[in-house]
Amino acid sequence: MTNRVHNFCAGPCTLPLEVLEEAQQEFVDYHGTGMSLIEMSHRAPEYDEVHMEAMQLAREIYGAPDDFAVLFLQGGATLQFAMVPMNLLKAGQKAAYVGSGAWASGAFKDAQKYGEAYLAWDGKDNGYTRMPGSDEIELRPDTRYLHVTSNETIGGIRMTEWPEVDVPLVADMSSDYMSRPIPWEKFDLVYGGVQKNLGPAGAALVFVRKSALSDANSDMGAYLRYQTHVDKDSLFNTPPVFTIYMIGKVLKWMKNKGGLPAIEQEAADKSARIYQVIDNSNGWYSCPVAVENRSHMNVVFRLPNEELEKKFIKEADAAGLKNLKGHRSVGGCRASIYNAMPMEGVEALAGFMQQFQRDNS
Amino acid sequence: MTNRVHNFCAGPCTLPLEVLEEAQQEFVDYHGTGMSLIEMSHRAPEYDEVHMEAMQLAREIYGAPDDFAVLFLQGGATLQFAMVPMNLLKAGQKAAYVGSGAWASGAFKDAQKYGEAYLAWDGKDNGYTRMPGSDEIELRPDTRYLHVTSNETIGGIRMTEWPEVDVPLVADMSSDYMSRPIPWEKFDLVYGGVQKNLGPAGAALVFVRKSALSDANSDMGAYLRYQTHVDKDSLFNTPPVFTIYMIGKVLKWMKNKGGLPAIEQEAADKSARIYQVIDNSNGWYSCPVAVENRSHMNVVFRLPNEELEKKFIKEADAAGLKNLKGHRSVGGCRASIYNAMPMEGVEALAGFMQQFQRDNS
Repeated sequence: MTNRVHNFCAGPCTLPLEVLEEAQQEFVDYHGTGMSLIEMSHRAPEYDEVHMEAMQLAREIYGAPDDFAVLFLQGGATLQFAMVPMNLLKAGQKAAYVGSGAWASGAFKDAQKYGEAYLAWDGKDNGYTRMPGSDEIELRPDTRYLHVTSNETIGGIRMTEWPEVDVPLVADMSSDYMSRPIPWEKFDLVYGGVQKNLGPAGAALVFVRKSALSDANSDMGAYLRYQTHVDKDSLFNTPPVFTIYMIGKVLKWMKNKGGLPAIEQEAADKSARIYQVIDNSNGWYSCPVAVENRSHMNVVFRLPNEELEKKFIKEADAAGLKNLKGHRSVGGCRASIYNAMPMEGVEALAGFMQQFQRDNS
Repeated sequence: MTNRVHNFCAGPCTLPLEVLEEAQQEFVDYHGTGMSLIEMSHRAPEYDEVHMEAMQLAREIYGAPDDFAVLFLQGGATLQFAMVPMNLLKAGQKAAYVGSGAWASGAFKDAQKYGEAYLAWDGKDNGYTRMPGSDEIELRPDTRYLHVTSNETIGGIRMTEWPEVDVPLVADMSSDYMSRPIPWEKFDLVYGGVQKNLGPAGAALVFVRKSALSDANSDMGAYLRYQTHVDKDSLFNTPPVFTIYMIGKVLKWMKNKGGLPAIEQEAADKSARIYQVIDNSNGWYSCPVAVENRSHMNVVFRLPNEELEKKFIKEADAAGLKNLKGHRSVGGCRASIYNAMPMEGVEALAGFMQQFQRDNS
């Protein structure tokens, strides 16, 4: 494709071009079967292979231990906001939340519907520009889990260090999913929408510790119980076939790149390149985020004034650098550079930023 | 495509070839934007147009009145099994279910988790081979709604006449969705997975009467409340973009065919062609379903013995007539002939059935 742009959208977002082209090629007639994969039964051997391979690759690349089940669910991270407390939070227990931004707030709000939930730390007063240290997190007795958001897409902050606490962690990793290794022993459950780092919209990928489900709540609709999907390998009902198929292709692409170590290094390098431009701009560009919590996925930055920000976004767009507008709730600019954003796109943006500063200083 | 087969799968299933080819053509570079539609923000104008057009077409083709909201949700019909009673069933009310088969049982089971649910009629004793007449449905006082399954995919029965009852109907229409006009005044809510008549797997299409939500339950996670999605036109969180895009294309294809009247007539003609072969076989082929409840979507039939059934399925497969095996719970054969199955495929099956009888009698 000759006119491919660089897409810095916060999600859904850029996918690897080779994945798109491969999917296009086999779209109408899947592997000579005379039908599209999306026309097949989810019980067909061809789909079963796709499904099981995607689950296996997710486990392998992320290094998830055997005690974790890998699930593909629908409803995005948003439905997980409810499913987590519905399943895990029992009568008499409390759920702790790190209030790190908009997404944490959504999760916290839902949890309050299902039990006693509280903010163990709240970043509201600092404008959600940093994550807490372990010593700032205040847990109450009978806390079942501490919920964290590993990366806040809007604020552009990431949880660089995982909290050292005495309760299991539950993490929404939607916006930096599978971009760095995680210490599995700390987690009971990890979830995220796939539409940033892992594929097109339409699924949440959930890793849940099976032993943590043994005494989980069960008095709810079948779809809402994790155990339902654990028992059936996410084939209890018709799964989102196309999304899972695409996730499988993205995971294969990640594995071929060198897996998590390579992805992590590239994410560090890509984000560093943009932060470098910001830091070397003599304050012309600025990033409101605490240096130690700067996101490797969503680089937020401001220009000297809103007029210049508008001009920047418009001219960048014309230059093929798309979707650099910050979230409407915070303004400014944001470059989302998920796993599939090539360094080439980051270099193009860095160059554009430097030229724009020269032209407009 | 030269080797395209006829796919009689019960779902996911055949989609219109022209829809697949169009999607393939624009898959990598959507309308010259330099990116795939699945890489775009769900807030992008290009996707917004796709989303709103699909909702509008669904409303228009099905003739849904203004008081109904059109929603695209995730989790399939299975999550609706829970969402319906969670939202609609209030303390002190009862929910009535028509026990028409496997899918109705799933819905009924979930409802029992959220309130007092009962079977107003149970087809278990007749092996789920027919639907009840209105006079057979026994409603109890304080019943909030009567839940029906308009077509049972496994049993191959359809609700030919809608029950005449004094409470609103809620219907799971997954397997004959938008294949015939419905009397909207009878319904408070209509839902179904889209992966049979309307597109690939990954969404449920829900029509909900807005006035019926005014006093609905609200004490639940945001995703699980219908009102959340009504308020945001199904854009509260990231929707299943690709599935909705494909639904839009299928709906346009339906409209171009002449809409519901043409689809309904074709469904009647297609199913009649297979039932005719069965009825003219002197009992060699048989259909266990009551004549008045024969499905227009899933034609189930038996051969003289299981050995012949195996042979039939195998030879049909070799002849390019795929997925004719009945559901494992009932055995026999099943031809699912959803909206996108062309008459050509039905003729091919009818011809094959006649020839197979001649060769094996």
